[in-house]
Amino acid sequence: MPFTTPFADRLNHVETSAIRELFKLLGKPGIISFAGGFPDSALFDVEGIRAAANEALTHEPGATLQYGATEGYQPLREQIAGFMASKGASGVAASDLIVTTGSQQALDLLGKTLISPGDKVIVEGPTFLATIQCFRLYGAELITVPVDGQGARTDVLESLIAEHKPKFVYLIPTFGNPSGALMTLERRKAVLEMAVRHDTLIVEDDPYGDLYFGEAPPPSLLALADSMPGARDRLVHCGSLSKVLSPGLRVGWMVAPQELLAKATMCKQFSDAHTSTFAQATAARYLAAGGMPATLAKVRRVYAERAGTMAQALRQQLGGAIDFVEPQGGLFIWARLTGEGGRVADGAALAKAAIDQGVAFVPGAPFYARQPDAATLRLSFATAPVEQIVEGVARLARAC
Amino acid sequence: MPFTTPFADRLNHVETSAIRELFKLLGKPGIISFAGGFPDSALFDVEGIRAAANEALTHEPGATLQYGATEGYQPLREQIAGFMASKGASGVAASDLIVTTGSQQALDLLGKTLISPGDKVIVEGPTFLATIQCFRLYGAELITVPVDGQGARTDVLESLIAEHKPKFVYLIPTFGNPSGALMTLERRKAVLEMAVRHDTLIVEDDPYGDLYFGEAPPPSLLALADSMPGARDRLVHCGSLSKVLSPGLRVGWMVAPQELLAKATMCKQFSDAHTSTFAQATAARYLAAGGMPATLAKVRRVYAERAGTMAQALRQQLGGAIDFVEPQGGLFIWARLTGEGGRVADGAALAKAAIDQGVAFVPGAPFYARQPDAATLRLSFATAPVEQIVEGVARLARAC
Repeated sequence: MPFTTPFADRLNHVETSAIRELFKLLGKPGIISFAGGFPDSALFDVEGIRAAANEALTHEPGATLQYGATEGYQPLREQIAGFMASKGASGVAASDLIVTTGSQQALDLLGKTLISPGDKVIVEGPTFLATIQCFRLYGAELITVPVDGQGARTDVLESLIAEHKPKFVYLIPTFGNPSGALMTLERRKAVLEMAVRHDTLIVEDDPYGDLYFGEAPPPSLLALADSMPGARDRLVHCGSLSKVLSPGLRVGWMVAPQELLAKATMCKQFSDAHTSTFAQATAARYLAAGGMPATLAKVRRVYAERAGTMAQALRQQLGGAIDFVEPQGGLFIWARLTGEGGRVADGAALAKAAIDQGVAFVPGAPFYARQPDAATLRLSFATAPVEQIVEGVARLARAC
Repeated sequence: MPFTTPFADRLNHVETSAIRELFKLLGKPGIISFAGGFPDSALFDVEGIRAAANEALTHEPGATLQYGATEGYQPLREQIAGFMASKGASGVAASDLIVTTGSQQALDLLGKTLISPGDKVIVEGPTFLATIQCFRLYGAELITVPVDGQGARTDVLESLIAEHKPKFVYLIPTFGNPSGALMTLERRKAVLEMAVRHDTLIVEDDPYGDLYFGEAPPPSLLALADSMPGARDRLVHCGSLSKVLSPGLRVGWMVAPQELLAKATMCKQFSDAHTSTFAQATAARYLAAGGMPATLAKVRRVYAERAGTMAQALRQQLGGAIDFVEPQGGLFIWARLTGEGGRVADGAALAKAAIDQGVAFVPGAPFYARQPDAATLRLSFATAPVEQIVEGVARLARAC
């Protein structure tokens, strides 16, 4: 008799994503993809990473290959604290953060540590898909705060906090996935003020903040919290090397108040014991060698050019049929179909038609935990060279 | 006002381990440690791993540093399938397994995928401490099956299964941590038979099976399951490179029926997206280069000598005050204090007295999910050279 696996009840809250299904179509030859959520591997500093790995194996072979502390490899924690300080968060010591297996694990540890079934969590609408699923798996009921061209609507957020008393609020204030939005300084301050006023925990996820094209964005919530009494006690900040150096290292981190950090560390012990020391020691040597500023300058330049090319092509080729705010950083253009002149107004329908024309992107509806906007789409400009971007947008215009 | 973190209810089921506290004492100068649960880093094949990492970066820089499939890096899945086949599990295809961030993550994914609060899980008494905590965090009620010199008592196990109808049974049949016990072929077959008869899922954790000192142990449950109809559908097998190659890579794997593998993959997506491709590509190249048999031969030889030295010293120095089965593999001697002649009979008391004498080990009681045997202790012979083992046991005898 076949065996029926006795799955846990929590699996009833999630499903395999629609986007995952779409990705299966990407194997079609000749497809130009704006669908990915990843950096361009052609930009990886392979030789810098190779040198770092070799140095780690030469100078610290034991620590590089042995079990390590659950909190993270100490030299890496120190390098990360220095990296954060270089971005204005000068109040962060190595002991204020733990290393996580990508920032995805920070989300998982937050879920494990904080969410009981039925707890409410506020997220942006739209937000990162794997966040939605991750928190739902722990039984969270998600409430969404709308996002406009200035980031999450803090006026709405405050009333949602007052109404729902959430376990925490999860925000990607800087060039978020998928919205690409940049939260203004004013709204950032408002978020921290309401954290203190309503005694609410705020989670700032910041994997894209270094990928700005022109001026640096406003300081992170973490950097701002130093000058606002009580804010640091109510703030978690997640960072990652994935978008700026290499996702394959799976090196992320979480800055949090000590009490939460201790519980997250305990949970991490039972999740994966610790993040690969081989990857951590490599990352630590890479950061110590000082190659990061040059690496960042390079990826900013390339992504800026691609973003500009895509924005211009969209305006030229689709005109009034598409509406978007030109991104100031990150990997994505988040757009809305207007249906002008009887053109396609549904993101999912356009995604299908686009595949037939030889271009792929991700429809926006799945990025909403609630009340999806079916007219939205996410276009990544990160991995296609500029000529392909122009051609891909032309194909998109034909599909629309 | 200070912030009170609103932790999830599940944290009430676990606590920071007593062993973790003990480890803080290990920094004392001159301490000889039998306390660790890790391999000797002096035995790591640093140059083999360096060559593998460099090859991966040269030939597959993109795949090595980019995001990868949640299921694992395909060439590594194939190498692992081949490694399993070389140990008698010839029915395992690459698609029958996923790569996990150490086998600790396999345990976490099993908890996430299978355990609802209140579900019963049968584990050995004693068993791996992080398993107890990991499953409890998901709300499992743990039932223990006793272990003797021939492994878990299958007669008791069958009645426990019938009585409790557990979600699954978790066993470390080969040189388990902490018992070091080796389950006989007869009992292995009995376990698989009762899996089919009672329609019960069995989880075989096998990180130590390659570390045998003389003859190879009986085939794994996974290898045996191929010739028993229905057994493979009711069996999960967890493996790891941590004890044989390097824990720092955090490369483990889980062989499971397809339905369970699909759900575990979905959960892994939200846990850490995927295991470090940098570590996976390095491991794949290492296995492909064929260095594993020589590496295994070396660690087996060294650990066999250390195990023999420790066993002899314990018999000579402690005589009837200590009782143990000499291990045929693994990293541990599991012993029981007899209290003969008025000597210390409590593991925790001896651990404290031993620190004063300059030797550390781990008392056995915390390894029991229920009904701890306070007279037990775990002694690792893996990391101390033979002269230190002799001296450490002499110190232990003085403390006892």
